[in-house]
Amino acid sequence: MRMYDLIEKKKRGESLSQPEIQFLVDGYVEEKIPDYQMAAMLMAICFQGMDRRETAWLTLAMEHSGEVVDLSSLDGPTVDKHSTGGVGDKTTLIAAPLAAACGAVVAKMSGRGLGHTGGTIDKLESIPGFRTALSREEFFQVVRKTGLSVIGQTGNLVPADKKMYALRDVTATVDCIPLIASSVMSKKLAAGSQAILLDVKTGSGAFMKTPEEAAKLAEEMVAIGCAAGRRTGALITDMDVPLGRMVGNALEVQEAAQVLQGRGPADLTEVCIALAADMLVLCGLAEPEAEGSETAEPEAAWGKRAEAVSPRRSGVALVRQALADGSGLERLKAMVQAQGGDPQALEHPQRLPQASCRYTVLAPADGYVTHMDTEGIGIASMLLGAGRSRKEDALDYGAGIELRKKTGEPVRAGEPLAVLYAGKERLFPEAEKKLLASYAFGPEPPSLRKHVLARVTEKGITWR
Amino acid sequence: MRMYDLIEKKKRGESLSQPEIQFLVDGYVEEKIPDYQMAAMLMAICFQGMDRRETAWLTLAMEHSGEVVDLSSLDGPTVDKHSTGGVGDKTTLIAAPLAAACGAVVAKMSGRGLGHTGGTIDKLESIPGFRTALSREEFFQVVRKTGLSVIGQTGNLVPADKKMYALRDVTATVDCIPLIASSVMSKKLAAGSQAILLDVKTGSGAFMKTPEEAAKLAEEMVAIGCAAGRRTGALITDMDVPLGRMVGNALEVQEAAQVLQGRGPADLTEVCIALAADMLVLCGLAEPEAEGSETAEPEAAWGKRAEAVSPRRSGVALVRQALADGSGLERLKAMVQAQGGDPQALEHPQRLPQASCRYTVLAPADGYVTHMDTEGIGIASMLLGAGRSRKEDALDYGAGIELRKKTGEPVRAGEPLAVLYAGKERLFPEAEKKLLASYAFGPEPPSLRKHVLARVTEKGITWR
Repeated sequence: MRMYDLIEKKKRGESLSQPEIQFLVDGYVEEKIPDYQMAAMLMAICFQGMDRRETAWLTLAMEHSGEVVDLSSLDGPTVDKHSTGGVGDKTTLIAAPLAAACGAVVAKMSGRGLGHTGGTIDKLESIPGFRTALSREEFFQVVRKTGLSVIGQTGNLVPADKKMYALRDVTATVDCIPLIASSVMSKKLAAGSQAILLDVKTGSGAFMKTPEEAAKLAEEMVAIGCAAGRRTGALITDMDVPLGRMVGNALEVQEAAQVLQGRGPADLTEVCIALAADMLVLCGLAEPEAEGSETAEPEAAWGKRAEAVSPRRSGVALVRQALADGSGLERLKAMVQAQGGDPQALEHPQRLPQASCRYTVLAPADGYVTHMDTEGIGIASMLLGAGRSRKEDALDYGAGIELRKKTGEPVRAGEPLAVLYAGKERLFPEAEKKLLASYAFGPEPPSLRKHVLARVTEKGITWR
Repeated sequence: MRMYDLIEKKKRGESLSQPEIQFLVDGYVEEKIPDYQMAAMLMAICFQGMDRRETAWLTLAMEHSGEVVDLSSLDGPTVDKHSTGGVGDKTTLIAAPLAAACGAVVAKMSGRGLGHTGGTIDKLESIPGFRTALSREEFFQVVRKTGLSVIGQTGNLVPADKKMYALRDVTATVDCIPLIASSVMSKKLAAGSQAILLDVKTGSGAFMKTPEEAAKLAEEMVAIGCAAGRRTGALITDMDVPLGRMVGNALEVQEAAQVLQGRGPADLTEVCIALAADMLVLCGLAEPEAEGSETAEPEAAWGKRAEAVSPRRSGVALVRQALADGSGLERLKAMVQAQGGDPQALEHPQRLPQASCRYTVLAPADGYVTHMDTEGIGIASMLLGAGRSRKEDALDYGAGIELRKKTGEPVRAGEPLAVLYAGKERLFPEAEKKLLASYAFGPEPPSLRKHVLARVTEKGITWR
């Protein structure tokens, strides 16, 4: 078998066979196939695509290119969650403890942020003392004790993806659905959970700009996961507006704790309840909602005990209870403590890193916020020190943005639009400029879309 | 400027600007742009193409990536000729001396063969003593003395093409018209002739399998040459059948000499007259034919003095005269002598390298040769030692094939179909198998197409 012939075949639009894809992945990891041939192949895949079978074969070959994690010694149903990335996306910090509080086992590896998107590991590391680099033994100990652990990627997991992603990143071959799907799913499969919930973001702050693209990616990933024998589902959620009001590492930890205390922003709370509920459904601990029933405002349920709607409880009902009784927050605190962090920081945000400087951006006009370029908001936050433009950049955990006004909200000229936090005053002018350029104002309120747009299961997609 | 952004731009189908293309070529030659980024760009170009302006800018940037040859010190109009490659294509050995005999100055660099196609330099090197590696001074001396010199590429000409072609060759990005056109034309422009005639081959032995593809490539190359201020034209000629009856290095030199003696095969003679005539027209030494007039059988003119059809002579008439009076042959002999070769070998083929073994392939059936897979014939010749499968392979100058039967000719079972020549008996079985597999027979003679299918000028294409 020659790599040349495989490039030629894909260039002509033909499908590659399982042995051909195995040869491709193994050869690249073993450095028998040079970067330039893989770059040509990746570009050909960008144009010709891959069918479902090819994408599944690619994913499995990548999954098995290194170690895989065996979670079978853990008691209880294991479930993982993955977000395709967005701005203000602190859902793992909320949905994972809620699911764990309801009996799911969440033994999860997360990533760092890059560009306009944040990463869960960075957010957790803003908690004083919190360790994300645990040995395999410590990781299992934390999970056994608290039902929940979130760590950075350890060991030689999916080396094929590391190498291929690094190449895609410099050859403009990132935005290709089969390559994105196989990259995400190879890591999720190797991480070992029996069930996988994908949160596919769409909108101005997401990689998938339209709901249709997001649906395509979600369906692709769900198909791969199911083909690999994992219970896999996806929610398509809105990222046309930042999630919640906080963007930045310690700021997002603070907001996540607020949600778990039942006093977080409505959009973020709703999305986290939906995610945690579907995590429970995928691991068989709860029944799915009848479509439409969980779209009622979740705040209306605060304090009330959700009632059983079926012989087994609904996922949403279980999760609302874990929010109302504080058991979700307790899980997060337990994990933070088990991983060396200060659990008191969750309820006392003054114990989290604080930015030394703050600056209030004022609204330039009367009217409504009609649109936010959410990627632009993410970049403004990066400029303040909360994110990285290059992998090697250091973070300022206290930096970020508090959004006082979001899409759909009325605003008066001179009113605070956002508060910027940074370690140095000189970072404000450029970030303010970027932030203001990311807001659009108009005389009429815009129509707003749902926070959870669709659910994707093995059986297909259901739009809400 | 970042290479990443240029790849992304081309991937989206946008045109690159002149500074962007200059950055691309310079950066690659200076090794600031790595192979893997260039490979991704080349594949994106294969899918998205390049417009006329981009292709011209690419060609000019490549041309000027190294030395360029200045032929302005030579007296008389300089003209170059390039073939896109085929099987049995010894036209340079015939058309160039004929054009030189009529007053053109042919100071030409040629290449070596690879795969199923032969190369002029290999053919010339089969002449005992012939040197293709001359210094720039020797090259000019030969041209001043004989009006003609053909040498291998010297100096640091078009390093961008060397590097890009080597990469295309291993990344399945060779068959892309703007990349082929810019590769060919950058070398022709750097070689310095004022006029350039392109022989674009089409058919089963050519890279361009259909006349339409050949026309597209020809038009692209003519447009580039004209945009660069050179008088450029092209003929589209048939390569569905090998040209002439000889395939191999010394065998082709022998056949070329036969044509120059007025006793060569009709197809080869006709194509060479057309090429030489158009070389004269492009350098302003002759008038073009009225379309159609030169398609009469050229043999009919043997011995006759062609008559002037306009105040200035027609190219075809001049070339026929140079054939008839032997001045074309004299030019070739003069060049061979000036470059250290044995000029007597042209008229006494026993002085050329001879294969020690020969083997006659017999026709398996009665009927007509209805088709030849000419690429297969070229590969059979390569298997005998006349060509290279890899650049570093050594050649056997005496090896090759004499085709006794070609497409359209009647054949009886058991009659000689071809004679194979090689240095070792053991090479015959595989070559015979390949050769026989390349012939198709049938009860009816096939319809044959013209040897010269079209002429392409700046003004457009004229099919014959």
